[in-house]
Amino acid sequence: MNVKKIRPEKYLKYLYLPNLFGTQRTKEILSVNPTVIPQREEAKDVVVFVYDYDVNGIEERKLSSVKECFRYKHSNRISWVNIDGLRKAEVEAVCEHYAIHPLVVEDILSINQRPKMDEVEGILFCLLNMLYYNNEKQTVEQEQISIVVGKDFVVSFQEDASRDVFNPLRDRLKLNTSKVRQRGADYLCYSMLDLIVDNYYTVMEKLGDRIEFLEEEVIRNSNKRSLARINQLRKELIVLKRNIVPVRDLVGGILRSESELLDDRTTKYFKDVYDHIVQAIDLSENYRDIMMSMQDLYINNVNLRMNEVMKVMAIVTCLLAPATVIGGIFGMNFDAIPYLHNEYGFWIAVATMLIIPIWMITVFRRRGWF
Amino acid sequence: MNVKKIRPEKYLKYLYLPNLFGTQRTKEILSVNPTVIPQREEAKDVVVFVYDYDVNGIEERKLSSVKECFRYKHSNRISWVNIDGLRKAEVEAVCEHYAIHPLVVEDILSINQRPKMDEVEGILFCLLNMLYYNNEKQTVEQEQISIVVGKDFVVSFQEDASRDVFNPLRDRLKLNTSKVRQRGADYLCYSMLDLIVDNYYTVMEKLGDRIEFLEEEVIRNSNKRSLARINQLRKELIVLKRNIVPVRDLVGGILRSESELLDDRTTKYFKDVYDHIVQAIDLSENYRDIMMSMQDLYINNVNLRMNEVMKVMAIVTCLLAPATVIGGIFGMNFDAIPYLHNEYGFWIAVATMLIIPIWMITVFRRRGWF
Amino acid sequence: MNVKKIRPEKYLKYLYLPNLFGTQRTKEILSVNPTVIPQREEAKDVVVFVYDYDVNGIEERKLSSVKECFRYKHSNRISWVNIDGLRKAEVEAVCEHYAIHPLVVEDILSINQRPKMDEVEGILFCLLNMLYYNNEKQTVEQEQISIVVGKDFVVSFQEDASRDVFNPLRDRLKLNTSKVRQRGADYLCYSMLDLIVDNYYTVMEKLGDRIEFLEEEVIRNSNKRSLARINQLRKELIVLKRNIVPVRDLVGGILRSESELLDDRTTKYFKDVYDHIVQAIDLSENYRDIMMSMQDLYINNVNLRMNEVMKVMAIVTCLLAPATVIGGIFGMNFDAIPYLHNEYGFWIAVATMLIIPIWMITVFRRRGWF
Amino acid sequence: MNVKKIRPEKYLKYLYLPNLFGTQRTKEILSVNPTVIPQREEAKDVVVFVYDYDVNGIEERKLSSVKECFRYKHSNRISWVNIDGLRKAEVEAVCEHYAIHPLVVEDILSINQRPKMDEVEGILFCLLNMLYYNNEKQTVEQEQISIVVGKDFVVSFQEDASRDVFNPLRDRLKLNTSKVRQRGADYLCYSMLDLIVDNYYTVMEKLGDRIEFLEEEVIRNSNKRSLARINQLRKELIVLKRNIVPVRDLVGGILRSESELLDDRTTKYFKDVYDHIVQAIDLSENYRDIMMSMQDLYINNVNLRMNEVMKVMAIVTCLLAPATVIGGIFGMNFDAIPYLHNEYGFWIAVATMLIIPIWMITVFRRRGWF
Amino acid sequence: MNVKKIRPEKYLKYLYLPNLFGTQRTKEILSVNPTVIPQREEAKDVVVFVYDYDVNGIEERKLSSVKECFRYKHSNRISWVNIDGLRKAEVEAVCEHYAIHPLVVEDILSINQRPKMDEVEGILFCLLNMLYYNNEKQTVEQEQISIVVGKDFVVSFQEDASRDVFNPLRDRLKLNTSKVRQRGADYLCYSMLDLIVDNYYTVMEKLGDRIEFLEEEVIRNSNKRSLARINQLRKELIVLKRNIVPVRDLVGGILRSESELLDDRTTKYFKDVYDHIVQAIDLSENYRDIMMSMQDLYINNVNLRMNEVMKVMAIVTCLLAPATVIGGIFGMNFDAIPYLHNEYGFWIAVATMLIIPIWMITVFRRRGWF
Repeated sequence: MNVKKIRPEKYLKYLYLPNLFGTQRTKEILSVNPTVIPQREEAKDVVVFVYDYDVNGIEERKLSSVKECFRYKHSNRISWVNIDGLRKAEVEAVCEHYAIHPLVVEDILSINQRPKMDEVEGILFCLLNMLYYNNEKQTVEQEQISIVVGKDFVVSFQEDASRDVFNPLRDRLKLNTSKVRQRGADYLCYSMLDLIVDNYYTVMEKLGDRIEFLEEEVIRNSNKRSLARINQLRKELIVLKRNIVPVRDLVGGILRSESELLDDRTTKYFKDVYDHIVQAIDLSENYRDIMMSMQDLYINNVNLRMNEVMKVMAIVTCLLAPATVIGGIFGMNFDAIPYLHNEYGFWIAVATMLIIPIWMITVFRRRGWF
Repeated sequence: MNVKKIRPEKYLKYLYLPNLFGTQRTKEILSVNPTVIPQREEAKDVVVFVYDYDVNGIEERKLSSVKECFRYKHSNRISWVNIDGLRKAEVEAVCEHYAIHPLVVEDILSINQRPKMDEVEGILFCLLNMLYYNNEKQTVEQEQISIVVGKDFVVSFQEDASRDVFNPLRDRLKLNTSKVRQRGADYLCYSMLDLIVDNYYTVMEKLGDRIEFLEEEVIRNSNKRSLARINQLRKELIVLKRNIVPVRDLVGGILRSESELLDDRTTKYFKDVYDHIVQAIDLSENYRDIMMSMQDLYINNVNLRMNEVMKVMAIVTCLLAPATVIGGIFGMNFDAIPYLHNEYGFWIAVATMLIIPIWMITVFRRRGWF
Repeated sequence: MNVKKIRPEKYLKYLYLPNLFGTQRTKEILSVNPTVIPQREEAKDVVVFVYDYDVNGIEERKLSSVKECFRYKHSNRISWVNIDGLRKAEVEAVCEHYAIHPLVVEDILSINQRPKMDEVEGILFCLLNMLYYNNEKQTVEQEQISIVVGKDFVVSFQEDASRDVFNPLRDRLKLNTSKVRQRGADYLCYSMLDLIVDNYYTVMEKLGDRIEFLEEEVIRNSNKRSLARINQLRKELIVLKRNIVPVRDLVGGILRSESELLDDRTTKYFKDVYDHIVQAIDLSENYRDIMMSMQDLYINNVNLRMNEVMKVMAIVTCLLAPATVIGGIFGMNFDAIPYLHNEYGFWIAVATMLIIPIWMITVFRRRGWF
Repeated sequence: MNVKKIRPEKYLKYLYLPNLFGTQRTKEILSVNPTVIPQREEAKDVVVFVYDYDVNGIEERKLSSVKECFRYKHSNRISWVNIDGLRKAEVEAVCEHYAIHPLVVEDILSINQRPKMDEVEGILFCLLNMLYYNNEKQTVEQEQISIVVGKDFVVSFQEDASRDVFNPLRDRLKLNTSKVRQRGADYLCYSMLDLIVDNYYTVMEKLGDRIEFLEEEVIRNSNKRSLARINQLRKELIVLKRNIVPVRDLVGGILRSESELLDDRTTKYFKDVYDHIVQAIDLSENYRDIMMSMQDLYINNVNLRMNEVMKVMAIVTCLLAPATVIGGIFGMNFDAIPYLHNEYGFWIAVATMLIIPIWMITVFRRRGWF
Repeated sequence: MNVKKIRPEKYLKYLYLPNLFGTQRTKEILSVNPTVIPQREEAKDVVVFVYDYDVNGIEERKLSSVKECFRYKHSNRISWVNIDGLRKAEVEAVCEHYAIHPLVVEDILSINQRPKMDEVEGILFCLLNMLYYNNEKQTVEQEQISIVVGKDFVVSFQEDASRDVFNPLRDRLKLNTSKVRQRGADYLCYSMLDLIVDNYYTVMEKLGDRIEFLEEEVIRNSNKRSLARINQLRKELIVLKRNIVPVRDLVGGILRSESELLDDRTTKYFKDVYDHIVQAIDLSENYRDIMMSMQDLYINNVNLRMNEVMKVMAIVTCLLAPATVIGGIFGMNFDAIPYLHNEYGFWIAVATMLIIPIWMITVFRRRGWF
């Protein structure tokens, strides 16, 4: 008999709404990266964009193959090669051409990597995640981006061609007067990090809206679904924190770096990104505090309501008990019971049945039990 | 049918008092700053005050346009330009005139920025918030202030012309003998930070009064409104902490700075501000501890009261149960029931109904259940 | 009607014992120091003691006015000027005479200041609190003391003439052979700090006694007053911690200091004070842990007792329910009810009423529900 | 009578499933290492493998006795001596031959040692644990490995011959073109640490699966077994954390080391291992957070279900109470009771018995108590 | 009447077992050390052992008076003077002879001192506690030991002659070939610290056994005594932690020290002790975690059992309520009640009384309420 299996549907029916208590989500959060390269699925499409520019002009190209981008290495201009979609063979080809260390290649191809920054053989390497908020599933999604900064070039690797946060940068690149056109590869790298970090704020704003909506719900209704939603949101905050906290170290590493790639004039820009990421971390702590305070509120509200119900039931039961006793007394079959043959006996008994609970209510009221 | 919607009003009616559970407030606390300049609304009015002074004299001017203040730059005296109200164009004009770096301009115009301190190209830049306590809404309000310290000048930008904390400074400036008149721009900056930090204490004192009032309420009444108020106060403490903790780093940064703008004699004054802000942070931790202790007390009080009620109800129900049984026994229709035809049978039964509960009370009492 | 107002007296009567839940105490703990000098009330009496000594002799004087102490500055001997009672004019006079920086004067006159140490213009300045345990109110009281150490002098400012912790020092000063007479002003300062810190232990011992007494009470009686007492004690521990933790930094600052005022031979004495204050902080952490563990115990005990009561009530109600049913069965007015006309019918019914609960008790017992 | 002993089986039957609440496991976790060498049982078998290689060739040997490996010390090639199974005499013999300090020998022979790294007399010594996940017992198992790196040799000591994580390394050693063959003993050491750390991820993945499975169970069923499982998993996370956190210091120590044994080119490889171990620690913090959140969920679910049951019981009891009273009223034996002789009296009474609960249900519903 | 005083015995009888809830123990833990020397009771017996040795030979003497040991100071051999039992006069005599600073003397005579290390005037001074586990009282006992290391001597002061942990050292001293005989006073000091720290592990093993035993009890029985035992064990862990954490700083201080007393060859031995003490601290954290997890388990188990009982009672009461109602219905005295005169009326009523609860059970079962 499937009695056991039916149970939870009865008292926890809310749980079966799609996406509410995603253990699927837990799986994603807990998944690890044993640096075993084959685990990464080869991207279906690889799209390569090249922006080759200096103060005087810019050439923008969409290439069909990674090999075509090789010739830009010696263009004497700054070139930004952006590769959407990761395929082992092609990443290795590009990296070999740009003399990037094999360990960096391994990192680019890894998945679920912790954001980090490295200086290897005259190359500056940043690996971090862009975050997006999926409105439908109400989850924080991440896309790994690797940025390799060299003397006159920046090579960036993204997982997914469909979206990124760099469109404002692309617009600015086309303007002859924009600062990014006046400066070197380090400023381009700064611009990219700046856009990624600014996008974290966009994601946090969405999470903030969600928290606010949830708090509203907890206050007004405290229904059981709220618990599932709080639980889910806590997981998203874990994802958020995991992605932004190490970025502080990443930018801090750039600030402390003495690499020749970094112009002194660019340092204050990275300092600015650093301030932003520190503020984002602060803010995510505030989110956490407010979540905890909301969970306290939820539990208190559920308890208050439960207490209210139990109290009313107990009071009703208690108020009716004396009437039962009186009924029992005059229902006894003794020969001699006073008032039994009295004309108003019945009414006196019924009146007593009413008076005692009323008196009890008065007492309880005075004692503050209602 | 709107049965569902009516519910919370029934058991949580207290929640609908205005401003009690402000999710609006949560929204403000969670709001973020993606450095997107257009978000800041242009101020309606811009008011510029200039104080141009040295040991010998002071000139105080209220200017109608920011441009008029430009000539004070070369006055050979210390000039304090205070601009109330932020408009992009005007801030940029001033900053260009004073050769302030564009990143600083961006910070000045940003909103919800984390307090920070920067040294950029011979300029010392402090950004922090003045706090006010709104008695009506019982919230901590913040107003961003940016202070730019240069060789012979201080330029400060405030969001709002209606209020600030600098009146004591203005009074002191008018006194020929005051220390601020003997010293340079760094001492002026110290005076401003000192007044801002001292004002934090004023705000904390108001919050302290509120905590005390709330504790009084929790102890005496523990009504349901208290929970809402505790929740609200926790949020205000988050706002407070978020604004004062980074100020420690700000002042610490000035102390560690080796800028030529800072006279050695002024260091001990900044050290004094530093001590004050550290004490403020300490104190805000104490506030937090007392809030937690109050929340424990609230929950304990609610539980105590609930327990009390349930106990009384259970006891009453339990005490009346034997009477019901006895009533049942002599209400049975057996032919042969002892005492049924006895003259005092009824009284014996009723007496038993009384004696058993009295005996039970005695036993319960002895066991400490009352 | 004042029903609402009566309530708490009913279920929380214990709260009205004087001093139990001092929100007054909360007010004191939360009070802040906005460095606004006028807030300090002028002391009624100012008492000045001077000890002017070297290896060969000591002169002890009680002066009627602070001005009389000025001549000791040039006595070529070590002079300790102890001023009990703070009045703005007099503090400023003394400080001017001894060339003490105005910021230090401000600190001396401030109230509720965080313990701190400063080196200003060849002067060593320590500000901290002496703690006393008020047996009557069961609170930790504090008295601010400022110690200014110069080349050949120590000036100390106390708030209150009625008590301090320096009597053992005064005794030792009178002994020609005592070490304090052989050494300089730094050793005198060490002696004062040592006595202040040792006195912290005396206060902690009193608090420890109180904790022990409270634990005894919680274990034996767990009455409702205990909660109020735990709450009060937590506040006193906050006061304690707030006063002793910054003293570690104070003494640490002296140890790191390279002031010429500090003889190398005295360093190990300050190291000793440092060890004592670190131990005091450790111990106060232990106090906190034991308090938390006691609060857990209290809540558990209250719950255990409540559970016990509810269980007994539920069991009694439950045991009597079958008797009610049987009574009901044989009280029905059907014509044909078996055993109704049987001679022993009644006794059979009553026996059943007894047997069923006994059987239930047996079952419950076996299942471990008693 | 063994009533007392039967109890727990009744209400906690789930506890007797094998391996669920392993106090045996607690014993293992709590066991300590008093450096008392005799406690380690002598291994039954000792298996020695030697890999003696350089760029040109490799010699692989399985030796029957530790003494046979001595001659490889002077082979002018890199030699990796791997000893499976620890026997005091043999470990001492090897260490004497390789001039390893007696303290290191003591560490190799100790059990339950904390992972650590040491540089002693020209030798680099790493001691850490390999972790395996035992699917059957669902525990994390550990095997101590000691790695001694010298000029041209690596000696590794494992406890157990049956398993290790070095097979991929053995494969790579056989390839002439593999990097490990081009480099020195430091790279070999890196390869070993890398494999050990990567294996931690494999173990964590298993734990992650377990957490996910458990979360699924808690959400769907929240049966009592879940509590035991959460408890067990918390213990495994303690084991995990204890083993991986000190490895960060270990690798950090190698990075900071200035030993001549470490080639500059190898540093970035150790940096890579460092990044991996930091990420593993981060991830284990996430595991912990999710466990806490799951425990909250479990407790909430249990309470929700309990509340649900109690509420229904209270409501049923409460709804039937009025019927009892009405039955009592018309069961009284007064002479004059209205409707008693009415034809429809009975039906009116029964109808009232039905109407009152229905009305109560309506009221309760409207108030949101269902 | 002593009703109030009887109470706790009734519901907390378990509390009166000897040593269970030792507030006496709390007193000991909270006791402080105001450096007031007279508080230490003079030891009854003072036992002095001298070991005067070098590579070639050893002289072991038990002396009757501390003065006799003075001549060993100039023996040109290493001498270890171990004094069991502290008397002010004798400690001062020894210290004067060995030119030990008075502050050190004060520390040796103090009680409840925090473990510390000091370098004073060419002397190395360590003060720490040996721990023993008292099986009878189940407490951790401490005995203070002071170790003074000089050029050619070690003087150690113990409180109690009856026990210490140095017997293995004494054995090794008698062996001509043992390392301690080849080395200087620093190695002797290392040997002593090593034995003391190793002994911590022995104590922790006993505590570990106790935790395991307690966990077993909590799982199987969760009786009320467990709470008292958990409480007691938490106190012992506080004692443990307080004694071992500062020892890390002590050994760390020796490692950082540049004293001439410490031979470079001995450093790695102290490094080894350092590793051991760090591991001990780690382990004590694990103990704490497991204790917390056990307390959670205890509370959960108590709640589960309570819930179980309340649920059964509520269900029984609820199941019998319909029978009461039916009994009431047919007990009413209306003239016209259907089935009243039916032959099987009674049986129909009784059957209904049985059928309704059975139906209720079925429904409850299906909903998962059993």
